[in-house]
Amino acid sequence: MILLGSTGSIGVNTLIMAQKFNIKVESLSAGRNIELLNSQIAKYRPKKIAIIHEEDIHKLTPQGAKIYVGNEGICEMIAESSSSLVVNAIVGFGGLDPTLTALKYNKKLALANKESLVIGGWMIDASKIIPIDSEHFGLWYLSGSRPIKKLIITASGGAFRDISSKEIPTKKPIDALKHPNWKMGKKITIDSASMVNKLFEILEAKWLFRYDEIEAYIERSSNIHALIEFLDGSLVAHFATPDMKLPIAYALDTLQAKNTPVIDGIDILNIPPIKFEPIDIKKYPLWELKESLIKNPKLGIVLNASNEIAVEYFLNHKINFGNISSIVLKSIERFDREVNRVQNKNDISEIDKEVREFSKSLI
Amino acid sequence: MILLGSTGSIGVNTLIMAQKFNIKVESLSAGRNIELLNSQIAKYRPKKIAIIHEEDIHKLTPQGAKIYVGNEGICEMIAESSSSLVVNAIVGFGGLDPTLTALKYNKKLALANKESLVIGGWMIDASKIIPIDSEHFGLWYLSGSRPIKKLIITASGGAFRDISSKEIPTKKPIDALKHPNWKMGKKITIDSASMVNKLFEILEAKWLFRYDEIEAYIERSSNIHALIEFLDGSLVAHFATPDMKLPIAYALDTLQAKNTPVIDGIDILNIPPIKFEPIDIKKYPLWELKESLIKNPKLGIVLNASNEIAVEYFLNHKINFGNISSIVLKSIERFDREVNRVQNKNDISEIDKEVREFSKSLI
Repeated sequence: MILLGSTGSIGVNTLIMAQKFNIKVESLSAGRNIELLNSQIAKYRPKKIAIIHEEDIHKLTPQGAKIYVGNEGICEMIAESSSSLVVNAIVGFGGLDPTLTALKYNKKLALANKESLVIGGWMIDASKIIPIDSEHFGLWYLSGSRPIKKLIITASGGAFRDISSKEIPTKKPIDALKHPNWKMGKKITIDSASMVNKLFEILEAKWLFRYDEIEAYIERSSNIHALIEFLDGSLVAHFATPDMKLPIAYALDTLQAKNTPVIDGIDILNIPPIKFEPIDIKKYPLWELKESLIKNPKLGIVLNASNEIAVEYFLNHKINFGNISSIVLKSIERFDREVNRVQNKNDISEIDKEVREFSKSLI
Repeated sequence: MILLGSTGSIGVNTLIMAQKFNIKVESLSAGRNIELLNSQIAKYRPKKIAIIHEEDIHKLTPQGAKIYVGNEGICEMIAESSSSLVVNAIVGFGGLDPTLTALKYNKKLALANKESLVIGGWMIDASKIIPIDSEHFGLWYLSGSRPIKKLIITASGGAFRDISSKEIPTKKPIDALKHPNWKMGKKITIDSASMVNKLFEILEAKWLFRYDEIEAYIERSSNIHALIEFLDGSLVAHFATPDMKLPIAYALDTLQAKNTPVIDGIDILNIPPIKFEPIDIKKYPLWELKESLIKNPKLGIVLNASNEIAVEYFLNHKINFGNISSIVLKSIERFDREVNRVQNKNDISEIDKEVREFSKSLI
């Protein structure tokens, strides 16, 4: 397989599962954690390696592997690899090009990169994509041949679910980074507290399932990740312990995954009572964007870019938590019509830059 | 179709769904409610009618249909009907023969009669059976091509779930008939309070899915009916409003059912919190039989016969609620080995009679 983003949490778990399933690692890409990358190279002996920054080359011990550099290097590596499976666990905007390249070369794509679908879903044929995250994996697991009425994903509610809506706007990074259920990177933990992460997932669900009836509810225990209401009136739910090994296993090899005890089963006698709550716009002001995003999904580009700037400034203590939503909302308002001119990848990059500049100008 | 037990609640709902799905009613059978049967005959104009008691013939307005009488008559009617679908909604022991006849004539069997599988599951090839009840339908709906680790059905807990285990034994029919969630016949309401109904369902699940890892937990809201834990560690659940039209629709026509809004969807934002609780043997002493029944399923004959006698005497105010379990437990103890001699239908009838006599002798 080709694994992009091998040193992150998804990447590390993917290597564990690949070893368990006896899947050979042909190509690896990573960002700045060259130390971990070197130890992965020593263990898995890939034939091809891509890194982002040229200045890191001298730290690399490639063990004879061919080296590719930069975002273009990653795409080149995909094109030159013979493996039919690409695991894209790159974080951020940079994940889109590798996604498009993987699909162009007709490879099966296990997708953990959120931005690919959030900013470019309208260019992507999702039929060769297997989602690596709990919510979309849950939907995929539950869906079948029955007509769907509604897709439902759950949200934990993030760090501020029990804070009053009046106090949230003045919160600082140290508060926002306390996620109740999952241990994740800083950016996604902030995006959970603001519900931006769930807006991303709504857009991803739209493209993965080509369906617009999508809801998200808060389920505080994170034991249920997704539900589907079928046309017949049935509602089915997917429960699992919060462990990314399950979606990763299915993305790598469906047949082995279903015949393997991949994760521990949930002990339903010992979980907290399950309750579904609506997402309160007073606490999560960005949630008001949900329907506009489904109707005009290119707004995902604006959401992603303005949110990235706002979260960066928030993490650097330049703004308070409440400013994230005001920056994003103003950016959406400003670019609401302009996104309609986006027709291709270059247009995305262009408007992405404009949005980032505009967002910075608001601070 | 051939509908057996047309005047009960399942029968009536089956006729409603059959009309909705444009399925012709070739044959009807009913017990003592000749008045309702006559109005069904006038509306659906079946070609064949079976009634249990010869003395009811003069009340019947057959509108030219051929009349069959008695249990043998029902089986004759099945044999002479050309329809390929039999809906067996007969209550009690008498449902077994029609089940065996339907399968003998290679018809698809929509099965609401619990006793068929409880007492004769070991003689039955369940591959042509579609279950009509919430729990097994839920399991059927959730099962697919993935290897199963555990089947789970839920129980409401019945009328005494909030009564202390010390008080339950002295309870009277008026208390036991207050089922918290479902409106059903008297017998099954008592069987819910004693968990006998859930023991029946464990046995049915064993035969329907040919699998022995089966659990039942109390889920008080009756919004979840069944769950499956898969080998991979996923747990999936089937939620539905308590309405038998859903399993009936699928039993009649799977393709139409999945393309029809058969029942109202559940509004998960407005249901009570979902909690699963173990079944407490102190409150439900018969639950201790669960594993023995799975291991030695012919004990279902003893459970069914002794329970029928005990419930009859309980409903006639001859014994208290606590006596039901002591009569059943003593009967099981008495016939524990003897059921091994049961090899065919005649043996079932024979031992059934012996158990009934023994149970009566205990009162």
